[in-house]
Amino acid sequence: MKKIGFIGLGIMGKPMSKNLLKAGYQLVVYDLNESAVAEIVRTGAEAGTSAKDVASKTEVIITMLPNSPHVKEVVLGKDGVIDGAQEGSIVIDMSSIAPLVSREVGKKLATKNIRFMDAPVSGGEPKAIEGTLSIMVGGKEVDFGECLSLLQCMGTSVVLCGDVGAGNVTKLANQIIVAVNIAAMSEALVLATKAGVDPDSVYKAIRGGLAGSTVLDAKAPLVMARKFDPGFRINLHIKDLNNILETGHEVGVPLPLSASVMEMMQALKVDGHGGKDHGSLVLFYEKLANILVEKQNK
Amino acid sequence: MKKIGFIGLGIMGKPMSKNLLKAGYQLVVYDLNESAVAEIVRTGAEAGTSAKDVASKTEVIITMLPNSPHVKEVVLGKDGVIDGAQEGSIVIDMSSIAPLVSREVGKKLATKNIRFMDAPVSGGEPKAIEGTLSIMVGGKEVDFGECLSLLQCMGTSVVLCGDVGAGNVTKLANQIIVAVNIAAMSEALVLATKAGVDPDSVYKAIRGGLAGSTVLDAKAPLVMARKFDPGFRINLHIKDLNNILETGHEVGVPLPLSASVMEMMQALKVDGHGGKDHGSLVLFYEKLANILVEKQNK
Repeated sequence: MKKIGFIGLGIMGKPMSKNLLKAGYQLVVYDLNESAVAEIVRTGAEAGTSAKDVASKTEVIITMLPNSPHVKEVVLGKDGVIDGAQEGSIVIDMSSIAPLVSREVGKKLATKNIRFMDAPVSGGEPKAIEGTLSIMVGGKEVDFGECLSLLQCMGTSVVLCGDVGAGNVTKLANQIIVAVNIAAMSEALVLATKAGVDPDSVYKAIRGGLAGSTVLDAKAPLVMARKFDPGFRINLHIKDLNNILETGHEVGVPLPLSASVMEMMQALKVDGHGGKDHGSLVLFYEKLANILVEKQNK
Repeated sequence: MKKIGFIGLGIMGKPMSKNLLKAGYQLVVYDLNESAVAEIVRTGAEAGTSAKDVASKTEVIITMLPNSPHVKEVVLGKDGVIDGAQEGSIVIDMSSIAPLVSREVGKKLATKNIRFMDAPVSGGEPKAIEGTLSIMVGGKEVDFGECLSLLQCMGTSVVLCGDVGAGNVTKLANQIIVAVNIAAMSEALVLATKAGVDPDSVYKAIRGGLAGSTVLDAKAPLVMARKFDPGFRINLHIKDLNNILETGHEVGVPLPLSASVMEMMQALKVDGHGGKDHGSLVLFYEKLANILVEKQNK
């Protein structure tokens, strides 16, 4: 079994690395946060001294970092993966970042004959713990085939979406739909409530038809019960919307609804709601309309 | 069995009235289009000479008309239902109209002790023919109970959503979500395509997660196959969005995304696409981005 490097032991990286250890892989890990490293070392991993050090000791190097600049720094920067990795080794970046940065990183690594895939995930901390993430992969078919069983230790749906960058493009497409579908639900429920109709009756009447969606079933009951604990934070969706709009500008696709939802989420952040679940987007509409969407007690 | 009046024998009213005849109800029908009346008379109905005449001969009067002004004219206008209907009879307006007009009509009828429910439908012509419409009802529970078996001749999902007007509020909430979810899908698929990723791979990778929706499953494959036959026409969704925005203005709910999609659909209408399916909203984005969303031939 190959020796795996794992760099980035945050909320997601910690449980993902634990699932690899549980599956029997030998791990060399690295993070600036020493207590996170200590925790994974207690679970059986070896500690590296830098990204370069981790890369020099392993054949597959996984990175799980906050955003594009962190990935560039850790992979291409001083004492980075690129300085330690052996020819033929493979870097899998599982962070959610701008797809054009994925392509740039992939090209730089290729000049040193290091292979690269982008493989962002969705499902959040609970599914990272269960090992049931959805993993969207961009890369070559042969590399994907070689790493599939490894990725399946962390996720149940592992899909090759295209060449390098396709994983993050797919993740951004996913995040557009989720953000805008939450806004659609918010407009519908706030209008119904202010027009004097119980939002729960509306939800039940429409959920089985063309208006039905996973967002509606996941978020409408939480909105009506006023439950806005994350889940997926507004602040994180703002990060993704930044990457979405930046990518849209770079490839030439105007995205007016994504841009509107971005501004709504920014307004919520200003109001102190950045740490709440993205279902709390409804608060933006409620504030505009001076009403709360609540289930009637009948 | 009660004698039923049916006014409005268009694309929807014709098959709906036929299903009532099939179930054994006696029908008195009326429409300005004489050939439509003749067709239903051949199937076993009696022809009325006016809306007033139909109402005077029946206990339950159903109207199925294009929009709010037609309902006001036929129910409250000259030789209208209100002039013929007996005390205690019940009017069921199954048209999709502005909910505030439903409430106005209901109030006027109540002054003459005529009962009223609004009961707009979704599902379009195919489900009208099959008798499998979704029917969203606003009215009193006792009236709903009395008419349930009648309505079940036309629809499989018949839900009481609240008092008079609640049926149309629910229908508008439904149409907000459908319109905005189609736009969300369009932004995602156009971005992915222009970023060089096969939209079909994206669709398959995300449909099982939080981005999944009935709109995505119904419309994404049609978009990629360039199939824009209706279905539900852009022109009809524009009518609904008019009622949505008007209702939002009247009850005090700003609806920025619904308003944006309205303008996109208006742009498509100007370009000659008003008769196409509402899934053709993607054409708006494709025109902006100079690209077509098509499945790659692999």
